Amino acid sequence: MKKVAVIMGSDSDFPVVSKAVAELKAYGVPYECHVMSAHRTPALASDFADKAKGNGFGVIICAAGMAAHLAGVIAGHTTLPVIGIPCKGANFDGMDALLATVQMPSGIPVATVAVDGAKNAAILAIQMLALSDEGLAEKLEKAKQDMIDGVVAKDKALQDKLAAL
Amino acid sequence: MKKVAVIMGSDSDFPVVSKAVAELKAYGVPYECHVMSAHRTPALASDFADKAKGNGFGVIICAAGMAAHLAGVIAGHTTLPVIGIPCKGANFDGMDALLATVQMPSGIPVATVAVDGAKNAAILAIQMLALSDEGLAEKLEKAKQDMIDGVVAKDKALQDKLAAL
Amino acid sequence: MKKVAVIMGSDSDFPVVSKAVAELKAYGVPYECHVMSAHRTPALASDFADKAKGNGFGVIICAAGMAAHLAGVIAGHTTLPVIGIPCKGANFDGMDALLATVQMPSGIPVATVAVDGAKNAAILAIQMLALSDEGLAEKLEKAKQDMIDGVVAKDKALQDKLAAL
Amino acid sequence: MKKVAVIMGSDSDFPVVSKAVAELKAYGVPYECHVMSAHRTPALASDFADKAKGNGFGVIICAAGMAAHLAGVIAGHTTLPVIGIPCKGANFDGMDALLATVQMPSGIPVATVAVDGAKNAAILAIQMLALSDEGLAEKLEKAKQDMIDGVVAKDKALQDKLAAL
Amino acid sequence: MKKVAVIMGSDSDFPVVSKAVAELKAYGVPYECHVMSAHRTPALASDFADKAKGNGFGVIICAAGMAAHLAGVIAGHTTLPVIGIPCKGANFDGMDALLATVQMPSGIPVATVAVDGAKNAAILAIQMLALSDEGLAEKLEKAKQDMIDGVVAKDKALQDKLAAL
Amino acid sequence: MKKVAVIMGSDSDFPVVSKAVAELKAYGVPYECHVMSAHRTPALASDFADKAKGNGFGVIICAAGMAAHLAGVIAGHTTLPVIGIPCKGANFDGMDALLATVQMPSGIPVATVAVDGAKNAAILAIQMLALSDEGLAEKLEKAKQDMIDGVVAKDKALQDKLAAL
Amino acid sequence: MKKVAVIMGSDSDFPVVSKAVAELKAYGVPYECHVMSAHRTPALASDFADKAKGNGFGVIICAAGMAAHLAGVIAGHTTLPVIGIPCKGANFDGMDALLATVQMPSGIPVATVAVDGAKNAAILAIQMLALSDEGLAEKLEKAKQDMIDGVVAKDKALQDKLAAL
Amino acid sequence: MKKVAVIMGSDSDFPVVSKAVAELKAYGVPYECHVMSAHRTPALASDFADKAKGNGFGVIICAAGMAAHLAGVIAGHTTLPVIGIPCKGANFDGMDALLATVQMPSGIPVATVAVDGAKNAAILAIQMLALSDEGLAEKLEKAKQDMIDGVVAKDKALQDKLAAL
Repeated sequence: MKKVAVIMGSDSDFPVVSKAVAELKAYGVPYECHVMSAHRTPALASDFADKAKGNGFGVIICAAGMAAHLAGVIAGHTTLPVIGIPCKGANFDGMDALLATVQMPSGIPVATVAVDGAKNAAILAIQMLALSDEGLAEKLEKAKQDMIDGVVAKDKALQDKLAAL
Repeated sequence: MKKVAVIMGSDSDFPVVSKAVAELKAYGVPYECHVMSAHRTPALASDFADKAKGNGFGVIICAAGMAAHLAGVIAGHTTLPVIGIPCKGANFDGMDALLATVQMPSGIPVATVAVDGAKNAAILAIQMLALSDEGLAEKLEKAKQDMIDGVVAKDKALQDKLAAL
Repeated sequence: MKKVAVIMGSDSDFPVVSKAVAELKAYGVPYECHVMSAHRTPALASDFADKAKGNGFGVIICAAGMAAHLAGVIAGHTTLPVIGIPCKGANFDGMDALLATVQMPSGIPVATVAVDGAKNAAILAIQMLALSDEGLAEKLEKAKQDMIDGVVAKDKALQDKLAAL
Repeated sequence: MKKVAVIMGSDSDFPVVSKAVAELKAYGVPYECHVMSAHRTPALASDFADKAKGNGFGVIICAAGMAAHLAGVIAGHTTLPVIGIPCKGANFDGMDALLATVQMPSGIPVATVAVDGAKNAAILAIQMLALSDEGLAEKLEKAKQDMIDGVVAKDKALQDKLAAL
Repeated sequence: MKKVAVIMGSDSDFPVVSKAVAELKAYGVPYECHVMSAHRTPALASDFADKAKGNGFGVIICAAGMAAHLAGVIAGHTTLPVIGIPCKGANFDGMDALLATVQMPSGIPVATVAVDGAKNAAILAIQMLALSDEGLAEKLEKAKQDMIDGVVAKDKALQDKLAAL
Repeated sequence: MKKVAVIMGSDSDFPVVSKAVAELKAYGVPYECHVMSAHRTPALASDFADKAKGNGFGVIICAAGMAAHLAGVIAGHTTLPVIGIPCKGANFDGMDALLATVQMPSGIPVATVAVDGAKNAAILAIQMLALSDEGLAEKLEKAKQDMIDGVVAKDKALQDKLAAL
Repeated sequence: MKKVAVIMGSDSDFPVVSKAVAELKAYGVPYECHVMSAHRTPALASDFADKAKGNGFGVIICAAGMAAHLAGVIAGHTTLPVIGIPCKGANFDGMDALLATVQMPSGIPVATVAVDGAKNAAILAIQMLALSDEGLAEKLEKAKQDMIDGVVAKDKALQDKLAAL
Repeated sequence: MKKVAVIMGSDSDFPVVSKAVAELKAYGVPYECHVMSAHRTPALASDFADKAKGNGFGVIICAAGMAAHLAGVIAGHTTLPVIGIPCKGANFDGMDALLATVQMPSGIPVATVAVDGAKNAAILAIQMLALSDEGLAEKLEKAKQDMIDGVVAKDKALQDKLAAL
């Protein structure tokens, strides 16, 4: 199976990014996770992206905050699908990172998820890989059903709570 | 090859959406394009999404403006990757559609592109399909090189223009 | 009397939603309260809305955060008045939920209240039911007078406080 | 049948407001339409709201732009449901009017629709009246079905257009 | 000397408003301070504004949050200058209150100060009264000089701090 | 009578500012109108403000766009009340100018009106001068009544228009 | 003298960027102007920045719109001062480009000017070069004086215009 | 070597500004640091800027919050490059200060860094001085390499952490 790369601009983003890692693990999808910066280590980031396809990666997830250029820069260096997680920084609740991630010019898309939406970034990567992996697709279907069961259980718990009021 | 579905919430979105259609055509990717609304024809939209995988679709692109629920609703009914194009409506330059598309809760991702970013939505869909289609992957590489050549040509034209000043 | 449905996208919204429940109880208006998600349990939500009128509901209140699609999706499945409570999520102070709730396309209104405005959502539902229930209308008038008396009492308390400075 | 009042803060809002009037007419709902300002004619506005219930009104729709106080002020003077239409002014695409309309304090709700969403304001008023008027409710159901048929027809037209490309 | 009225929409605004009161006291300007709501006690607020000039008031300061209508409504009932303090509520950092206070339509100005800018509201009121009261004007000049001295002293303290590093 | 100064940061603001001038003229209030920039001619602006009181001015109105510093800088040099008109520039619909005008630090107020709200700036200045000029106060009362009559006339015209539909 | 590089992400930015070029020409500062994209030609952009200092450049001005990564990426590859011009794109009035340009992480500054502020970008570059070039510094002083004279002349013209009213 | 001035509008900004001071110290760049306000001590600020070049300064860094006029006002009084640090105040996460700092009119640039970006302001000043100081330029190159090494070390630490999971 192709690997998923999970890259973050700063190791301070790991608490967010770790949710993507956990999801990939839960699905048994091989991954690598790295700290790499579009601004501080641009050569390393470019090099990683240039070689990603050859190195067995299928999807690259990039998490960055503030003027979040990481996903866009990586996308400039590969034709693999790139997923961007805008991270909330010290200001603006992540609006700066969201706009810097999603507003990509024509020709170079970044698949953007919600601010700090690391779990969804992983699910999206898995959905992409599942296009040619029926086993993964079945796991996604099962997770969807589990999610339904979870909500139904919570509704049941709520009815008990309301009855007890 | 799996098909790409391109759905728009209103036929008034077609001028935007047509750029995605054109891109899919240029790559020879099979597609279907429909008007379908999360609010006006919710049953049709749900039904389409429920059966999309079985009907041979691989990726679903959804374009909608204002309180843009289409991509999210479709994503609730399928495990296929869903790409959302937030469309600029009468107000807020598409910020309403962007937030309504990208800020999905955990468990149900929507791969969001820029406001009115229909061409990038198509490229993203193609990148996903190319994960298991080396022919498509090569076309993407070629397009990337063409893009580079295009910028280089424009820079050359600019030098002539500047020299003539 | 027709019932009011109070639906929330996630049980984490209950601390907000409980204020609507308390208000309905205080007015003696029959209600049901459920966890149901436009994204996680779309079939349940659609089904609930399709049958709401037949099941004796008069108004449906929907509370959701982030890309808050719940009210809009419910409104797509019923002609009953639907009230939307945009809930504050992790970012943007609820602006994402507000825009995703209020910016509905022509044909499918959602009566939107303030961010986390659950009490007002309930009062609005009661005002709608009171259109054909003079007893409820009188309770609303009494509450309005109580509110006036409350402000007058607070002004009096302020005068004492200022005099004591 | 109870009447619907449609009030606008300035006659320059009539092009927007006229869509609410047209909708009410189409449903055969009795209405009155007035220019009345929370700032320029506050006494008239208060007086109208104080007497609205007694004068046979069931719902009051208020349209205003900029620091849109009209709906809130009217709501302060009545227990009838009040619907607010935030109108786009010279700046901010109506965000000023939206926040000034929707962010009402606890106790005094305003049912807010989209910026310039006059048609939806009327439908919402009709939905409220239909709670005790089965004839109106049937008209709403019929309109919903017409809307579905309209979208289906547009999708069909799109298929023809695409086939002809 | 004419009195200054300081009105707040809710007694929860007193911690902000008290800074205006303290400033008026420090300048020896007579004032009254009241809780009065544009939405909850509209008749009281209108009546207060109608009679304010006759009752010896020269300036009216209004503090309110969220859909902050108080200053605008008061301004609709008087030709006295009205100063608006937008108060920070639970969301949007007071942007809702700022827009609802400052974006007044032509003909009815509200002199708006910064979010929670109660002290400045008082100084502005004093500046207005000082136009016909040379004693007040001298106090303002003295305060301005004190402010300069204060900054100079802080700069001196900073130099000591830096030297000690 | 004290004069009103109307200062603009750039002569391109005159189409906006001229509405303040027209209003002052209509009330017979003496004024001077100047182009003066906080950034381009800071010494002239400071000097003007330093001497304004001595030169017979009572109120200073400042209009500026973008990073609108003019009102704040003038306010730093005088204890006269300063009114700020945030002007809409090329971007952000005047939000930059609004925040740069209204968010003044404690001690130096600027009485801010709506974006491009020049007429209201003049009325506010007249209200300040009217505190010690009963003739002006009467003109303000008369204008308020004219405004009421104007709205009533517009409502009458609307009734005719609606009757003719 | 060191050269100034003026780089734009797309040749569609030239109408904006040309104002920087004109200013550099007027001051007799040597420059090069190129189209180069952080996303479409990342290798060319990186290479240019890596060699800029060695190639005789002193300052690099970068203009880009939407998710404006150009300035940040260039800054990641050089220790020369980099000036960013956020360009207004199809949406958000350039707010996306402004945040993507200015919100740089610690360690990699971009000197950001106003949206579309190309002339100021050039002046800023000239101010930097003038730190070690007294001739340039004198030209800047002269331009500042010309600017003052220009405003004074405009004020004089305004007085004539007002007198003629 | 020319000195860098670091000016803050209020001594409450020192926790932010101190990071600029620390950076200048680390590079051995001479500096002065002052509290000086565009609003409270405008004459001192103007005088400082007028004489800055003559007093041996090369760059002026200005930090201010809210309606942050300090950098713009200083820039109006000098032809030295001025760097603005927008500081986060009580509201809007520093958006008010950012717009008030960056949106300077044509002719008077302010080199704006991120909200609270004091360290980057210092680095930018050093980059400017390094244009004519090869020793400083080498220190910047070394810091850039250290930054790369730091990220690489953090990535290595992350690999250990992930391996241990």
